[in-house]
Amino acid sequence: MKIVTKIWEIRQEIQKATNKNNTVGFVPTMGYLHEGHLSLMRAAKAQNEIAVASIFVNPTQFAPNEDLEKYPRDLERDASLAQKAGVDLLFVPAVEEIYPNGFNTYIEVCGDITSKLCGKSRPGHFKGVTTVVSKLFNIVLPDKAYFGQKDAQQVAVIEQMLRDLNYDIETVVCPIVRESDGLALSSRNVYLSEQERKDALILSQSLLEAEKMIQSGNQYVHQIKDFIWENIRSAKSATIDYIEIVNTKTLEDIDTIKGDVLIAIAVKIGKTRLIDNLKMEVL
Amino acid sequence: MKIVTKIWEIRQEIQKATNKNNTVGFVPTMGYLHEGHLSLMRAAKAQNEIAVASIFVNPTQFAPNEDLEKYPRDLERDASLAQKAGVDLLFVPAVEEIYPNGFNTYIEVCGDITSKLCGKSRPGHFKGVTTVVSKLFNIVLPDKAYFGQKDAQQVAVIEQMLRDLNYDIETVVCPIVRESDGLALSSRNVYLSEQERKDALILSQSLLEAEKMIQSGNQYVHQIKDFIWENIRSAKSATIDYIEIVNTKTLEDIDTIKGDVLIAIAVKIGKTRLIDNLKMEVL
Repeated sequence: MKIVTKIWEIRQEIQKATNKNNTVGFVPTMGYLHEGHLSLMRAAKAQNEIAVASIFVNPTQFAPNEDLEKYPRDLERDASLAQKAGVDLLFVPAVEEIYPNGFNTYIEVCGDITSKLCGKSRPGHFKGVTTVVSKLFNIVLPDKAYFGQKDAQQVAVIEQMLRDLNYDIETVVCPIVRESDGLALSSRNVYLSEQERKDALILSQSLLEAEKMIQSGNQYVHQIKDFIWENIRSAKSATIDYIEIVNTKTLEDIDTIKGDVLIAIAVKIGKTRLIDNLKMEVL
Repeated sequence: MKIVTKIWEIRQEIQKATNKNNTVGFVPTMGYLHEGHLSLMRAAKAQNEIAVASIFVNPTQFAPNEDLEKYPRDLERDASLAQKAGVDLLFVPAVEEIYPNGFNTYIEVCGDITSKLCGKSRPGHFKGVTTVVSKLFNIVLPDKAYFGQKDAQQVAVIEQMLRDLNYDIETVVCPIVRESDGLALSSRNVYLSEQERKDALILSQSLLEAEKMIQSGNQYVHQIKDFIWENIRSAKSATIDYIEIVNTKTLEDIDTIKGDVLIAIAVKIGKTRLIDNLKMEVL
């Protein structure tokens, strides 16, 4: 595996490695890799001749009051994990490489898809995401790009951006990877105290219970929401940001649990904001 | 020359025609072609194996009060002219092909570069331009893209977008083409009455006089501006929108006529808004 930090370098390496008959799989990340990221990297390598990953803690997707500064970083460990997962090229640019002086161009997916759920509590977040992802796509020119289902709204937003801007890139969405007790993997889990780590289980547990309610025939959005709400409120350190049940692709509200259903939740456990979700196809 | 209307078709044609050793030159236009457009097409063909042009009157760059509906169109004539100019592939999409239902993603270059000059009297105009140009770039994937110096601000904005979003595309900017009496070619010149056509000469004449003042050593921005202002006011049907003297690349105001100087003017002749400019390198 080769680690490069400059845009011209990663371009050159990719150009050297590719021709009309092989494909590039790309995994953009913010680093502090966990099994979720590694599952994307393994998929990228399995489905393409060349697997490229990036590690870039993107400042434009953090609001001033968020955790940009303290976001966990460990490049040495990340590089070793990425290599083992099959990554051929690891792109680790500095902030000035991505946002040089005078940078002033933004890509924004407008409408409900970016203004609800996480977009509501994190205004500007998805504008930062689409801007940096589009830049990385223009640099790496991948055939396929790999994202985790954990960030369900991010997936929907990026897919709309790709469609709207006519990028010829296929997204591959990999399932949420969980700890053995159910907690969805997240780089932010390291922020949790011992007690908070226990309380955090309430997210996945609530989703699992909701899934059972739906499987046993409950189609009432409000009943499912109310159940999750009450359940999460029982955890002392939990503050609910949102509990939403929407269409998976458009993120539009639904009246009845039917079709492509996404239950997405965001909950603060102490000071740490965690998200989790459940995707179902209900006939 | 082949004419195609669908995105999948133009992609397929370009993929068939290209390999690692040849290049694609691209000329995006709004049609109603004149010698200015044709000079871009000839340059694209001379400098690349494949010359692609598009004709698309882009609704998102027109404000509701502007001339979208009456913008002149003549596809048959355009196709014949483009073919003679060496275009291999002409892309003529319908509005729904570029902006299908649900479309909601925009690219915006922020700051002075889009808010001054034409950006001031045409708010949202450049957002429409960068959005459609970026879409067309993602569809055509050109090596070089050709633009006319006539739209000097458009050139500066697109070059900033390409830089900021890491597009690996080179812009080639071709000189303004003029009628024998000096009027800069524009598809909008057809709107002019006989008297207005005469009055419209005041734009190029003023720039020519300003150039002489600078060449004879005048470095005072205000004197040059004042001269142009007074000169244009002498034409009865003329209403000045702006007269600006700025840095060619950044469009920042300059104090002294020195370095990369752009004199850009916009004037309404009757109801027709015309632009013209003069680019100089002053030592």
